Amino acid sequence: MDKSLLLDLYELTMAQAYFVYKPQARATFDLFVRRLPKNRSFLVACGLEDILQYIKNWKLSASSLDYLRSLGTFSEEFLEYLCGFKFSGDVFAMPEGEIFFADEPVIRVTAPIIEAQILESFLLNTINLQSAIASKAVRVVLSANKRVVFDFSLRRTHGFDAALHAARSSYIAGCYGTSNCLAGKLYGIPIAGTMAHSFVLAFKNELDSFLAYAETFPKRSVLLVDTYDTKNGIKNAITIGLYLKEKKYNLSGIRLDSGDIVSLSKYARVMLDKAGLKYVKIFASGNLDEFKIRDLLRRGACVDNFGVGTNMGTSIDAPSLDVIYKISEVTDASGKFIPAMKLSKAKVTYPGRKQVFRVQNNSGKFTRDILGIAGEGLPGKQLLKKVIGRGRIIYKSPGVKKIREFTHSNLDKFPSSLKNISGKYKYPVLISPKLRSLRSVLSQQLRNNKIN
Amino acid sequence: MDKSLLLDLYELTMAQAYFVYKPQARATFDLFVRRLPKNRSFLVACGLEDILQYIKNWKLSASSLDYLRSLGTFSEEFLEYLCGFKFSGDVFAMPEGEIFFADEPVIRVTAPIIEAQILESFLLNTINLQSAIASKAVRVVLSANKRVVFDFSLRRTHGFDAALHAARSSYIAGCYGTSNCLAGKLYGIPIAGTMAHSFVLAFKNELDSFLAYAETFPKRSVLLVDTYDTKNGIKNAITIGLYLKEKKYNLSGIRLDSGDIVSLSKYARVMLDKAGLKYVKIFASGNLDEFKIRDLLRRGACVDNFGVGTNMGTSIDAPSLDVIYKISEVTDASGKFIPAMKLSKAKVTYPGRKQVFRVQNNSGKFTRDILGIAGEGLPGKQLLKKVIGRGRIIYKSPGVKKIREFTHSNLDKFPSSLKNISGKYKYPVLISPKLRSLRSVLSQQLRNNKIN
Repeated sequence: MDKSLLLDLYELTMAQAYFVYKPQARATFDLFVRRLPKNRSFLVACGLEDILQYIKNWKLSASSLDYLRSLGTFSEEFLEYLCGFKFSGDVFAMPEGEIFFADEPVIRVTAPIIEAQILESFLLNTINLQSAIASKAVRVVLSANKRVVFDFSLRRTHGFDAALHAARSSYIAGCYGTSNCLAGKLYGIPIAGTMAHSFVLAFKNELDSFLAYAETFPKRSVLLVDTYDTKNGIKNAITIGLYLKEKKYNLSGIRLDSGDIVSLSKYARVMLDKAGLKYVKIFASGNLDEFKIRDLLRRGACVDNFGVGTNMGTSIDAPSLDVIYKISEVTDASGKFIPAMKLSKAKVTYPGRKQVFRVQNNSGKFTRDILGIAGEGLPGKQLLKKVIGRGRIIYKSPGVKKIREFTHSNLDKFPSSLKNISGKYKYPVLISPKLRSLRSVLSQQLRNNKIN
Repeated sequence: MDKSLLLDLYELTMAQAYFVYKPQARATFDLFVRRLPKNRSFLVACGLEDILQYIKNWKLSASSLDYLRSLGTFSEEFLEYLCGFKFSGDVFAMPEGEIFFADEPVIRVTAPIIEAQILESFLLNTINLQSAIASKAVRVVLSANKRVVFDFSLRRTHGFDAALHAARSSYIAGCYGTSNCLAGKLYGIPIAGTMAHSFVLAFKNELDSFLAYAETFPKRSVLLVDTYDTKNGIKNAITIGLYLKEKKYNLSGIRLDSGDIVSLSKYARVMLDKAGLKYVKIFASGNLDEFKIRDLLRRGACVDNFGVGTNMGTSIDAPSLDVIYKISEVTDASGKFIPAMKLSKAKVTYPGRKQVFRVQNNSGKFTRDILGIAGEGLPGKQLLKKVIGRGRIIYKSPGVKKIREFTHSNLDKFPSSLKNISGKYKYPVLISPKLRSLRSVLSQQLRNNKIN
């Protein structure tokens, strides 16, 4: 499958018009989120690795070129240009795991305008999915308050690409692992699983099913106890736990997937402990999200591990980010970059080549961000790093484990209210006076001159 | 990438336990949706074609087998079994485009229990995505009341697999085409596009940008008129429309992407008509969904074509279906199928091998569905058709165009209230007396005998 053709038709039609009318033009595009979704105080950047691979490998296949030719829309000269297409520009980006806010560019592309345009669809699609899931998953992880969270979302994510990236993004956000074997293989993420109700139903009775499973995996059995009657299931799991104990094995856990998790988990904990099975972990699953987990823990649920699926893997309360890719400057006939901006009602953008400055106080805590002009001498950590220079990738991913650590060590430097899942805290993102003034001057100019 | 490894770890651990303890067991699994999401009166089945390909091509790669071996969880005998795995069972399914309701099996698998189990994750993931999007898109199409709807969702769908299937599913649901070039190529769907704000911004002024585009694509230009000032944009588009007319070309359309679409579209229609450009279509886009489209049309918006993205391509109000895969019968030691069911609170399922019977009245209209036992002599069209027999695919997809026609000709046979996007209408789905009695007898038996 030719992923290079995964683009909106208009990227190519605009590119052909540029090819004819603006062959020399260069431009800068910002990829950013216009507004944070409800319930989100911050977002977690995710998707850069795939974007770099995409840019590096962009090459239309012969059959894709034939397909485009068959549309009768494109000139032979332009198709030939596409055939030899190689990205030659610069890309600045926030590293994966970085925390970001509305209006802050996550990716900034400066390149021949055709090249920058052709990347649009894939860049948006990739950052949208991966950052949406990472930003949801980090909330689930925070709500679990140091308990283990597993990604169990494969069956309800949007296709196989989403399933893989839900596993990777939620791992980066702090999940402990995933149920998804292919994600485990591709990304080196720990994988985990329990058993399904169908397994219990396939045997003459529950105890037989537990025994078969425990005999097959004496070192790693998590028994699902709610198929018929949960308290009875717990009793059967204890029988198996004691049986394994005699054979010098530890039953890994039991799983509660329905009913009142608070009272059932307390009951299970007491019964397991009484039976001398203190080491047996209690898993909870079943339509969980950050609010339900917080509530369970506040009400004293004795849960060690959470399996979270649908709500996390689809970022159900905000399945997409308001992510856009906007031109911020373009060269004039002499090759000089001129700032650009839209004036559409409620969709006005910030012009010019920008940088995000994150200001720290004396104790190393972040106090505010400033969206300014690149090269403007502002204090603070500059969040956009060069990842591609003249078409060459210069960023090396530290790998998912390091990114995962970075996400949380980074998060610890923000005011603690940021981590409150209520999402009410607003971290200050200021606009530098220079950028503010550029925008107001340009806006006035446009109103006067450009419209006609 | 080895899609055969795209499964939850527990599918494989359960499979290994079956391999040891139930090597001869056969079982039937139903894939169905437990509850319709809010705003949905019905769902559209979609995803079968990918499922058939998946089953046909299932083969773990050498590196996937190595990965599984490296986990230290699986026996060599079982890995060898996996290496030679070939699905040998029967699959019944609703054809793509079929209308279905809660509790009705969309897929029914009868096979050696290991084989049926291993399919679970992929089957759920596939039906979930594709049916969720088709079921959302059909609502958007219905709300547009015969006007043209395009899928513009690529940039906000969950990864590339979702982007492709959003295009295909929404086409099946009645969209006219997609902006997604790769989907156009792979599925033979019409593709379409307009221009972006960045294109307008890249030129000295709006009129220059329109002219460059129109000169490049005189036969297929849709001009985006809201970058600076929409009324002025419409004026500029008319200038281009008249210029093209002189050269014997028709301007295809203008696009409104912000502001008050009702008044702007009325204004544009009047101005275009006055200028002798009655044939120029008006496109509307910008965060549309079925409710906004209905509202625009009720308020008299003069829109011919709608471009719908995020809300449709993520099925934003219901990004996942409550789709599950449940065992309904399993063989005993003698090889006889015995019905199975869960008793978990609020998650009780229907046992036995089932069929969905759709009853028609004398004028060919559907009046109700009956969920019954397969082979039960009930009246009506049987919705589950055999698609795989003893491992061999016997279903031939009619292709997306025919499926698209089927969706709507089929929908026309339901009571017209079904098509109301309020989602309040409840189509009657009855349970046959035989199935009801099987469930109650089995439920009693389980309570008495099986739990302990």
